[in-house]
Amino acid sequence: MDAVTTICLPTAAAVALLGQPPGIDVLVWDGVGDPPSGLEDVALLVGGYAVAPLPAQALARMPKLAAVQLLSAGVETWLGHVPDGVLLCNGRGVHTASTAELAVGGMLSWLRELPRFAADQAAHRWAPARTRGLAGTRVLIVGAGDIGRRIAAAVVVFDAIPTLVASHARESVHGVAELAELLPRHDIVVIAVPRTPQTEQLVDAEFLAAMPDGALLVNIARGPIVDTAALLAELRARRLSAFLDVTDPEPLPSEHLLWEAPNLVLTPHVGGGTTGWERRAYQLVREQVLRLHHGQALYNVVVSGY
Amino acid sequence: MDAVTTICLPTAAAVALLGQPPGIDVLVWDGVGDPPSGLEDVALLVGGYAVAPLPAQALARMPKLAAVQLLSAGVETWLGHVPDGVLLCNGRGVHTASTAELAVGGMLSWLRELPRFAADQAAHRWAPARTRGLAGTRVLIVGAGDIGRRIAAAVVVFDAIPTLVASHARESVHGVAELAELLPRHDIVVIAVPRTPQTEQLVDAEFLAAMPDGALLVNIARGPIVDTAALLAELRARRLSAFLDVTDPEPLPSEHLLWEAPNLVLTPHVGGGTTGWERRAYQLVREQVLRLHHGQALYNVVVSGY
Repeated sequence: MDAVTTICLPTAAAVALLGQPPGIDVLVWDGVGDPPSGLEDVALLVGGYAVAPLPAQALARMPKLAAVQLLSAGVETWLGHVPDGVLLCNGRGVHTASTAELAVGGMLSWLRELPRFAADQAAHRWAPARTRGLAGTRVLIVGAGDIGRRIAAAVVVFDAIPTLVASHARESVHGVAELAELLPRHDIVVIAVPRTPQTEQLVDAEFLAAMPDGALLVNIARGPIVDTAALLAELRARRLSAFLDVTDPEPLPSEHLLWEAPNLVLTPHVGGGTTGWERRAYQLVREQVLRLHHGQALYNVVVSGY
Repeated sequence: MDAVTTICLPTAAAVALLGQPPGIDVLVWDGVGDPPSGLEDVALLVGGYAVAPLPAQALARMPKLAAVQLLSAGVETWLGHVPDGVLLCNGRGVHTASTAELAVGGMLSWLRELPRFAADQAAHRWAPARTRGLAGTRVLIVGAGDIGRRIAAAVVVFDAIPTLVASHARESVHGVAELAELLPRHDIVVIAVPRTPQTEQLVDAEFLAAMPDGALLVNIARGPIVDTAALLAELRARRLSAFLDVTDPEPLPSEHLLWEAPNLVLTPHVGGGTTGWERRAYQLVREQVLRLHHGQALYNVVVSGY
């Protein structure tokens, strides 16, 4: 019989979501309040969603820690905070459908001019107008991970032509080095890469300048991947449009110029947070905990030894 | 060598879109102005988009007419106007992607509350909020034709669970007799059936009453399939929401109560009319004309002998 595996969850609510996996001892600690007894046995720590990583002195209380499991797709806040030899796992899959659908919803709202028809509705004006649509539209998806590939699968259903780009070229995926050549040939560019030192400010003035007149930039990844000032200049010139679920900075202060930019639709980083996401997240956590307990390899390992 | 086949197009612009298929003589007539010479040889007539059918006396000038090709998915305006023995063909496929994407765009805008975030953007307010999403949502699609099946394919990408309903049950498709049982178990109901005597007022007070509280009705088919007064009552009670691209009557008069209904997003019958649709339509026409010329069976035959 396996020994007991101890894990630490960020909230009491998470305990109910996890259920009671056999052989698992569950502690609850957010790294701030009084530490519960048994921390020294914790093998897997679940990080809170959209909160800061646990401080080093809190992690030091868990000498047997083998893995940190996050509930988000992005792990950038934890990079550099995970002790040597400890695995960092992300929530790949948990937010895929919701983030991809927000990107596609933003695209469709722009293409089919839903805000224009909303204004007509408010004015009791029946005014049919020809709009663009996805059929035949070339969509460049920067990021060929779970979310990027899901967006590609969705736009194909509507007869669009997706192109995937990742850090390194591989079968059916272009390398980031080809961006300069690809950008001018696409009407929609979707950013779906993780935030890393390599992707920060990837979408700079030069990137944007390579997009054709009238094109749409969609960012459902992380704000700092886009140079806000450079994008603002393109929007104010009314040369490009954008759908942003993420901004830099975030939250966007009420006096920020981005709020009043033309050709922009902005949502407040709600890509992943749909009803039921915690249930989906703790299905993943439960699976990971049981894999660890039974000595099986964990899923979604992003980095080890940071 | 084949004899020449004569066809009649509704506008001069259509001639350029068709190109010059070999062996085909092209006339242009809308059925109203002076008839061109050679009408008596016309074997295929292309009906204008969203215009009335040619009057009987105009059709009587085309004794060799074998087929009427429409550019729309719906053919209801021509039913009863096609001479005996003449095939009526629709534009199946031409508007599929654009109509399906408008339905899905309307769903996503509602689920992800894009109008709410648009108001927040106008107020410079960064206010993340949990919304619904398609993952795990049950979507009932009434109409298992080209457009209905395309909508099903799209929502599956976002982890929704589609159910298809058609006039008769078949593999993976429920029959319309099961609607009463199916409706209470679905959060979104999409109407994607043709307008026929059987589908007119299909969505009546009883149909709507069977939908669960808070559900969404999407109509991208034809307005008269829905009982406007019954829907209006549900909207005003704020029990259901709706996304309507089509209304009854159409165009919707500026004083109509539907304009001010709560929980409603309305677009002015723009499902099919995206940029480039004529190009796609005349690709189909060209294919049909050549099939007729070479004695092959036509595609998209809806009815014969009406």
